[in-house]
Amino acid sequence: MAAIQLNPIGTVICDVPDEEIGRRRRTLESTIQIDAEYRDALLGIEQYSHLIVLFWMHRVTGPAALQVHPRGDATLPLTGVLASRGRGHPNPVGLAVVELAGVDGCRLTVRRLDAYDGTPIIDIKPYDHYDACTAIRVPSWLLERQSPGKEFGRGNGV
Amino acid sequence: MAAIQLNPIGTVICDVPDEEIGRRRRTLESTIQIDAEYRDALLGIEQYSHLIVLFWMHRVTGPAALQVHPRGDATLPLTGVLASRGRGHPNPVGLAVVELAGVDGCRLTVRRLDAYDGTPIIDIKPYDHYDACTAIRVPSWLLERQSPGKEFGRGNGV
Repeated sequence: MAAIQLNPIGTVICDVPDEEIGRRRRTLESTIQIDAEYRDALLGIEQYSHLIVLFWMHRVTGPAALQVHPRGDATLPLTGVLASRGRGHPNPVGLAVVELAGVDGCRLTVRRLDAYDGTPIIDIKPYDHYDACTAIRVPSWLLERQSPGKEFGRGNGV
Repeated sequence: MAAIQLNPIGTVICDVPDEEIGRRRRTLESTIQIDAEYRDALLGIEQYSHLIVLFWMHRVTGPAALQVHPRGDATLPLTGVLASRGRGHPNPVGLAVVELAGVDGCRLTVRRLDAYDGTPIIDIKPYDHYDACTAIRVPSWLLERQSPGKEFGRGNGV
């Protein structure tokens, strides 16, 4: 199939050092600076509390293994990259559900975006009730690590 | 910023006519045929009940308006394309949260994927508890249309 070409529509601004983003994800606040040409495309976005942000993990280099131990933890089962949320997907597109804390022109203030400073933004989608699935099943090792009070970084962009 | 190049990793197979996909979304069952070279990347995916599917809306052509009436309904407020889930985003990447009904080698059977037959797949991510946000705010016009018993197609790919 033919290759697909995308053009970034904005950039992540984040003053937290790269190595701390994963650990501080729950309280992290970042800015998404949308390019001025797309300002009109943001009309009404402030009416949503949450967004889905797609970004390009621009620091990922080279082909990765197709199976990994999630988070590099050898005690976790070997898992296909498409069955995990790490960085090593064939197309390194990051996806984060974030809280929208504020809108000022082309600047969106968001919480819980685990992406490095300078990350190119591909798309933004408002989060709605069709996206919220509560009766879900995940592997037991993941369920244990995502229980309340724990923070299992997904390596989704960082 | 430099353009980004992606390569499809698979294709949607759907025997429902294009014009019926939106209306039949709630009960729709489709196949995602992942390319054979990525078969190993699916290891463990059957342990998840839901997936997030990113796809390329390959039939979208040309630049679209930056503001639209959602679903072409003039009674709904003019809305920026990044504040809606329609097809007219600057990068026409579709996103659907689907139920994973079965896995057979490189073939994933999924429910509620509102994408045409032949649509290129960009990425698949397993849906986990971080993706499920229940205390959300959406515009009142959308809340009314997504209430139980109604089906408000999002035009997300179709």
